[in-house]
Amino acid sequence: MNLLKQMCKIHAPAGEEFAMSQFLLNYIIKNQNKWKAKPTLHYGDGFQDNIIMVFGKNPKTAVFSHMDSIGFTVKYKNEIIKIGGPNTSEGIVLVGEDSIGKIEGKLAKKDDKLFINFNREIDRGTSLTFKVNFRETDDFIQSCYMDNRLGVWNCLEIAKTLEEGIIVFSSWEEHGGGSVGYLGKFIYEQYGVNQALISDITWITKGVKHGDGCVISIRDSGIPRRSYVNKIIDIAKKSNIPFQLEVEDSGGSDGNQLQRSSYPWDWCFVGAPEDNVHSPNEKVHKKDIDSMVRLYKKLLEKL
Amino acid sequence: MNLLKQMCKIHAPAGEEFAMSQFLLNYIIKNQNKWKAKPTLHYGDGFQDNIIMVFGKNPKTAVFSHMDSIGFTVKYKNEIIKIGGPNTSEGIVLVGEDSIGKIEGKLAKKDDKLFINFNREIDRGTSLTFKVNFRETDDFIQSCYMDNRLGVWNCLEIAKTLEEGIIVFSSWEEHGGGSVGYLGKFIYEQYGVNQALISDITWITKGVKHGDGCVISIRDSGIPRRSYVNKIIDIAKKSNIPFQLEVEDSGGSDGNQLQRSSYPWDWCFVGAPEDNVHSPNEKVHKKDIDSMVRLYKKLLEKL
Amino acid sequence: MNLLKQMCKIHAPAGEEFAMSQFLLNYIIKNQNKWKAKPTLHYGDGFQDNIIMVFGKNPKTAVFSHMDSIGFTVKYKNEIIKIGGPNTSEGIVLVGEDSIGKIEGKLAKKDDKLFINFNREIDRGTSLTFKVNFRETDDFIQSCYMDNRLGVWNCLEIAKTLEEGIIVFSSWEEHGGGSVGYLGKFIYEQYGVNQALISDITWITKGVKHGDGCVISIRDSGIPRRSYVNKIIDIAKKSNIPFQLEVEDSGGSDGNQLQRSSYPWDWCFVGAPEDNVHSPNEKVHKKDIDSMVRLYKKLLEKL
Repeated sequence: MNLLKQMCKIHAPAGEEFAMSQFLLNYIIKNQNKWKAKPTLHYGDGFQDNIIMVFGKNPKTAVFSHMDSIGFTVKYKNEIIKIGGPNTSEGIVLVGEDSIGKIEGKLAKKDDKLFINFNREIDRGTSLTFKVNFRETDDFIQSCYMDNRLGVWNCLEIAKTLEEGIIVFSSWEEHGGGSVGYLGKFIYEQYGVNQALISDITWITKGVKHGDGCVISIRDSGIPRRSYVNKIIDIAKKSNIPFQLEVEDSGGSDGNQLQRSSYPWDWCFVGAPEDNVHSPNEKVHKKDIDSMVRLYKKLLEKL
Repeated sequence: MNLLKQMCKIHAPAGEEFAMSQFLLNYIIKNQNKWKAKPTLHYGDGFQDNIIMVFGKNPKTAVFSHMDSIGFTVKYKNEIIKIGGPNTSEGIVLVGEDSIGKIEGKLAKKDDKLFINFNREIDRGTSLTFKVNFRETDDFIQSCYMDNRLGVWNCLEIAKTLEEGIIVFSSWEEHGGGSVGYLGKFIYEQYGVNQALISDITWITKGVKHGDGCVISIRDSGIPRRSYVNKIIDIAKKSNIPFQLEVEDSGGSDGNQLQRSSYPWDWCFVGAPEDNVHSPNEKVHKKDIDSMVRLYKKLLEKL
Repeated sequence: MNLLKQMCKIHAPAGEEFAMSQFLLNYIIKNQNKWKAKPTLHYGDGFQDNIIMVFGKNPKTAVFSHMDSIGFTVKYKNEIIKIGGPNTSEGIVLVGEDSIGKIEGKLAKKDDKLFINFNREIDRGTSLTFKVNFRETDDFIQSCYMDNRLGVWNCLEIAKTLEEGIIVFSSWEEHGGGSVGYLGKFIYEQYGVNQALISDITWITKGVKHGDGCVISIRDSGIPRRSYVNKIIDIAKKSNIPFQLEVEDSGGSDGNQLQRSSYPWDWCFVGAPEDNVHSPNEKVHKKDIDSMVRLYKKLLEKL
C-alpha cells in the first residue's frame, strides 16, 4: 500500500494531471521489465498528459482510470471555487503552492462563499487540494483521493500479469471530462477495441456495503448497454470472487464520455466502494480492494 | 396499425434496445423484397444494437428514429429510478422480468421516492416499462410508447417506396444519447450525407393541436440551422400536406446529438404531436400520422 | 471602429449566422490583398456557415471567434423565448423581420413569460435581436453584441499582419455549441494544429476591471490544461502588454466544446472584459481592446 500512499499525496487536480503523469511514467519505465508482458506506451504529443499502455498483440478490452482529483482554485482575495464536487466542510485543511511559496490553510465559509484562511493573498488561479492523512488499519484504508488513486493503483497491480489488454490513464474526469473522447478514438482506430472497464471508486449506499466485494455498476446517471454489463456479471458470477451490484441515478464516470463519443464503446463501471465520498476521509475496505484486483484480472482474461 | 401495436409492446428501454433491434431486423428481412428498392443493411459489430438502411446509390438525407423508450430501473428493495423522463403518477402499472419470473405491479410513492408494489424483492437492475393498453378509435391512437414506436413505424412505411435515402434506428435517445455520434460519423464518411430528419413524436401545446398536421419544429432546447429548416418548410408549403410549426425552449432529440457531433449535420425534427407525453396514454390523431408519412415521402424526394 | 459598428448591427442570432458569414466573406475577399499574407479560405459545403482562414505554411495556433449572438425566438401569440442567455429587462427594444415586414417592439413580462409588444401577431419562429445603439466615448465603446463582434473584429485586425496561424469564425456558441467539434477536427487533421485561443468577450467582476488590460482566463466553468495556460501567461508577462488574470466557476466558451471533442485541443480564453453582459449596453474599455489586439499578435508569434 506504499505505492497507493505515495500516489494519494501527488497534487493533480483536474487540468493539472502533469505530476501524476510524470510519476506514472517513471514508475512504468522502472517496473515494466518485471511485468509478465512489456507494454507499448503511447504518451506525449497528441496525448496531452494521458498515458496508454497496450499489452499483447490482440487486446480486447481497455481499462480507463482517471489520474485527476477534485480540489479548489483560488479566485480573488483567497476566495476559492470548486474543481469537480469536493466536500466543503469548514475546517478542512487545504494545501498548494504559488509563486511566493507553500500554502496550507483551513477552508472557511462566509456569505455562501468559500475561502481559505491564509496569512497572505494567494496568486490567482492557484490550485488547492486536500492535505493528505493516510490511515491504514487491518480492514480499511482511509485517505483523500482514494478516488481515483486506488483506481490507478488497481491498474498498476493488474499490469504486472496482464498479457492482452489496454490500460488508460485519463484526465479531467472530475470536471467535465475531455480526454476520453480522443483516447477512445485512438484505441478504437489503432487497435479495434471497443470494450471498456472503468477502474474508478464508487459510493457506499443503502445497497452497497463495506466488505461485500467490488461493485459492478448496472447504471448511474449514464446507462451502459445492458448486454455488455450482463456479460461482465456472468463472468463475475462464475469467478466466485465476491462482488456487489449497484443501481444509481446520479454520479457518472469516464463511461458517460465514452458513450457520447463518436465511437461505439461498450463500458461498465467496476470498482471498490468508499465512504465519505470526495472528502479527506475517503474510506475503502481492504476486502473490496482485493476483490477489485482479482475481478479485473478475471474480466481482462474472459471478456 | 397492427405493426405499430406489436412494436408498442416490445420491452426496450434505453440501454436495452436489443429486442426492438431484433424485431426490426426480422421485419426488414421478411419485407424488403416487397419494397420498391432493396436497402443495404448495416448492423452488428461496430453498430451496437442500431440498424442503418441505405436505399439507392445517391442518398441525400438520413432519417433518424430512436428505438428506445423511457422506463424505470429497479434499485434496492423495489425502489425504482427513472430511465429518461417518464410520468410517475401513482397507480401506473409497470411490467418487466427478472431471474425469478414475470413482474407486474403499480407505481407507488413514499418519502419522495418511487417504488413498485410487488409481492417479492425484484432483482437489482431489472428494467420496467409501462404495461401496454393500445386503443384505437376513428380519430385517435392511444398507447404508451407512441414515442417513438410511431416514429419507427413511420420509417417502415416510407421504406416501402423509398428509392434514395437512409433510415437509421438509434439507441439511448431517451437517456443521454450515445449512438447518434458514431452513426452520423459512419453515414457522413461512407455516404457523404449530412442532412437529417428526426422521425420522433412531439407535444400538443398551446400552439400545436391534434389534427392540424405533422409538426415541423423550428426549435426546442436545440436550435437547428435555420436555412435548413426553411428549406423543409418551403417543401411542406408547396406540398399542400397539412403541417404545423412548433417553437419550444425545452425538449430535445437525436438532433441535438447530431449537432454536437464531429460532423456538420443539418437536422430538423419532423413528427406528429401527442398528448399525455411520456405516460401510458400517449395519444396521437390519425390525421397527423397520415400527414407525417406523406410529408416524409415528399421531403425525402425533394431535399 | 466603423467596422465594429457595422458588425454589431448584423442580425445573426445562434442558428442564423448566415448574414455574418456573408459579411465576413465579402470583407475578407475585398481586403485580403492588402494583408501581409493571403489566407487559404475554407467555407461552404461541409462547413455550414463557418469560415476558416489559414495563414502560412506552418500554422501552430488557431483563433476561434464565434459569429452568433444571443437573442429571442417568437413562439405563439408574440410570446418569446431565449436564444442563449440574454438580459430580459422589461422595455428592452427588440427588432426582427417576418413574412409581413419589419418588427420593432419592447420586451414585456406577464406571468413569468416573456413577450414582445407589437401591433400584430408575429410569424412563429421569427428571431429577434436587441436594437443597436452604438456609443463611443474617449475611453469606452458601448453597444449590444460586443460579445462577440469585438472578438470577430479582433480577428480581422490580427489578420492584417498574420503570417502563420489559423482564424476560425464559428457558430452556435451562445446556444449549446455545435460547430467547433467538426471545425476542430478539420484543423487538427488537415494542419496538425491543436493549440487554440478563444477570441471572445468576458465579464467585469470583483477581480477584473475596466482598463487593466485584456483578460487571460485561467478557468471558467471549464478548466483548460494549466501547462498551456501558463505558457500563455509567460508570453504575456514578457510582452509588457497589460493583462488581467481571471478565475471564474461559471460561463463557458468554444473552449469547452473543443475540450470535449474527439481531438486533443489545448485552449485558453483571451479577451477584453465587458460590463452589462448580454444586454443592449455591453461596455468595453478601449485600452482593453488595444491590449487584446496586441496580445493576440504576440501570442500568435510566440506560441
